[in-house]
Amino acid sequence: MKIPPVKGTRDFYPPDMAVRNGIIDGWKRASIRNGFEEYDGPIFEHLQMYQIKSGDEIVEQLFSLEDRGGRALAIRPEITPTLARMVNQRINSLSRPIKWFSVPRLCRAERPQKGRLREFFQWNIDIIGVDDVLADAEVIFTTVDYLREAGLTAGDIRVKMSSRRLLAAVLRSIGIAEAELDSLYVLLDKKGRLPAETFKELLAERVSDVGTASRIEAFMEASSVSGVRQAIGAAWNDEVAEAINELSQVERLLKEEMGVGEYCQFDPCIVRGLAYYTGVVFEVHDIVGELRAICGGGRYDNLLGDFGGGAIPATGMGMGDCVLEILLAEKGLLDRQISGGGLDYFIVFVPGLKFDGPGDVASTSRGQAVRLTARLRGLGRSADFSYKAAGVGKQLKQASERNARECIIIGDELRRGKLVVKDMSTGEQRLVGMEEFLSQLKP
Amino acid sequence: MKIPPVKGTRDFYPPDMAVRNGIIDGWKRASIRNGFEEYDGPIFEHLQMYQIKSGDEIVEQLFSLEDRGGRALAIRPEITPTLARMVNQRINSLSRPIKWFSVPRLCRAERPQKGRLREFFQWNIDIIGVDDVLADAEVIFTTVDYLREAGLTAGDIRVKMSSRRLLAAVLRSIGIAEAELDSLYVLLDKKGRLPAETFKELLAERVSDVGTASRIEAFMEASSVSGVRQAIGAAWNDEVAEAINELSQVERLLKEEMGVGEYCQFDPCIVRGLAYYTGVVFEVHDIVGELRAICGGGRYDNLLGDFGGGAIPATGMGMGDCVLEILLAEKGLLDRQISGGGLDYFIVFVPGLKFDGPGDVASTSRGQAVRLTARLRGLGRSADFSYKAAGVGKQLKQASERNARECIIIGDELRRGKLVVKDMSTGEQRLVGMEEFLSQLKP
Repeated sequence: MKIPPVKGTRDFYPPDMAVRNGIIDGWKRASIRNGFEEYDGPIFEHLQMYQIKSGDEIVEQLFSLEDRGGRALAIRPEITPTLARMVNQRINSLSRPIKWFSVPRLCRAERPQKGRLREFFQWNIDIIGVDDVLADAEVIFTTVDYLREAGLTAGDIRVKMSSRRLLAAVLRSIGIAEAELDSLYVLLDKKGRLPAETFKELLAERVSDVGTASRIEAFMEASSVSGVRQAIGAAWNDEVAEAINELSQVERLLKEEMGVGEYCQFDPCIVRGLAYYTGVVFEVHDIVGELRAICGGGRYDNLLGDFGGGAIPATGMGMGDCVLEILLAEKGLLDRQISGGGLDYFIVFVPGLKFDGPGDVASTSRGQAVRLTARLRGLGRSADFSYKAAGVGKQLKQASERNARECIIIGDELRRGKLVVKDMSTGEQRLVGMEEFLSQLKP
Repeated sequence: MKIPPVKGTRDFYPPDMAVRNGIIDGWKRASIRNGFEEYDGPIFEHLQMYQIKSGDEIVEQLFSLEDRGGRALAIRPEITPTLARMVNQRINSLSRPIKWFSVPRLCRAERPQKGRLREFFQWNIDIIGVDDVLADAEVIFTTVDYLREAGLTAGDIRVKMSSRRLLAAVLRSIGIAEAELDSLYVLLDKKGRLPAETFKELLAERVSDVGTASRIEAFMEASSVSGVRQAIGAAWNDEVAEAINELSQVERLLKEEMGVGEYCQFDPCIVRGLAYYTGVVFEVHDIVGELRAICGGGRYDNLLGDFGGGAIPATGMGMGDCVLEILLAEKGLLDRQISGGGLDYFIVFVPGLKFDGPGDVASTSRGQAVRLTARLRGLGRSADFSYKAAGVGKQLKQASERNARECIIIGDELRRGKLVVKDMSTGEQRLVGMEEFLSQLKP
């Protein structure tokens, strides 16, 4: 019986796995050098967890299941609710700031398309317990620090930043009612992905006053933090000024102190789809602009409270592997993510060759190959040999396919206790005593 | 709203994650040095996949779900069916032998108990395409190679080996009908976990002839491969002899060629619960015998065919993290699984200290700390600083909690371009020029 894989999932054959490991190792390295510690939660949680704050889109895309007791569960579509649960559970014993990262496997029942799969990996970094824009800047710096190490330059990508606080202040200042903010965010978040006319129509449906709607549009077209004043004109007030000041501080930190200003720009169209953001928000986009956002994040000061904890400030970022991998491939950077690979030694035996001399050399060339391989592995070296009694030439070819750095040939020389060691990059061969060779390999 | 985690799942806080990573890194290292390449599949497959060959116990424990199209899916309870599917899909292009490993997250709706959780990680190694007991020996050697590196000795654990082929031959030779073999395996597999009397009763229910039942019992008490002859007496035949010969070869390879004989012993009670085994089978147990099996595996030559592929020989092993972690903890070996950790540098600033001298030293001690941290991270070093303007003493304490190897203090000395660098293990301090210090750190 032949059964296909589930649509929208991926099989990782060894070459695909090498790419996935390369990307995830890069995420982990960047997290660790920026001072984050790794955590993880279960692959499923109670379904309710995702009905609190994840936003309608995610709730619709849940893979839900039941346990044997009939409890409603769901495979995690994001890890932030788990993070909130875990932090709340130990809020009194965790030392602050909580600076954590994770690389969860997530599932969403989306229609599979370019850069969107039903199952993917997402790098998450979060700083909890710090009510200072320095933490927002740290999250953005760490994101750029990874992307830069992966080989992406300021000519390839751009961090687009704005602030929910600023957006809320502007919308309030021009007369939008508090109760309408959340649903307006959802629309404004889609501006970049909708045709200009469609956006205009949808905005007019929600904001009937033409002057108010055009002010919103003017704000969303502001190209710098300082340009906001001009865009909103008379609606300027202290609340807006404070939000602007906060965002300017983030810009200054990223540029002056952290040296990544060239990657960053203000963009008031950045709103983020998720309901829980409260302050600075950002997304990273490819400059060509053909792909979805590479990642997104921001401040979510109320989320831990929403999950039954105290009011604790928090800010974070999530980056999926799908869009990133497409961009790295487009830029020819995929190969450089892959590290290591290849065997230290491939042991070649001479089929049919028998040793029956005195001393410890007994049995066959093949038996000696098995024996030497086991000893090399015991010394921590990667080593392998052919399970088939193929000719020496064929075995050397196999060694080369396996990217072995050296081949060790067990030939007649072993009667004198010697091995032939062949350097696979230069082709040079040398004759060494077996025990001498092994004693030089430190465990 | 406070929601608990799902029963039988684990939250991995950073210290738990360090243990999990330590164990998984050990599995990966052992796999790579033994010549295995990593693969992975999706977290869920079509439900049918697990109804073919996984055995009743696993089918009962499936976490099943539906996708939006109403298709029946299940979270993977094991990865072997996925492996079979993936290999069958590309059987003509994969070069042989296929020597793959994986570390999947698996879910089974079991009743949580010691060493059994609903969600766990399992190391899998498989050699596909090799019809030689050498491959079985390689799988067992790789398993021991990992356990040995983890610190477990032949005084802690034992590989118990038998053979489905031998068991089948013995049962046939004493008159058990072919159709009854599978259900008898399930019972015999439980022998070690049942009280002797209960096992006797259950066996009598299935095998009514007293002489036949006592021969089965005698076989299962044989303590060596050579002891089987005596145990089964007149039932000895060529089929049994061949199976014995095969098992003796595996024993010889492990002892003579691979040097791990002290870890291994024949044990006819090893049957394995899963339906798909066909040849050599083994389990690793703690010598004290208080825990469930640490791992199990064996030859499954028909499985790829059962999944719609050709007849391809295969042999493999699966080791979960739960029982292993309990054993490592009992033996005091958990700490040594954890590698690395700790920051390279913690940057300490002097709260309130301002620089306004000439040259490139501007702003505050804190601003300079942010700046230096970003530069160190850009050079690939792990570095962090305090987000709070705590006193220098408190910051040094924080550095020590974060296991920083060196602290860099940004004090008055920076007016002369100098940093104070403190070695956190010796407590020694030295004064170095900032640019000189940075230029010595290669990226």
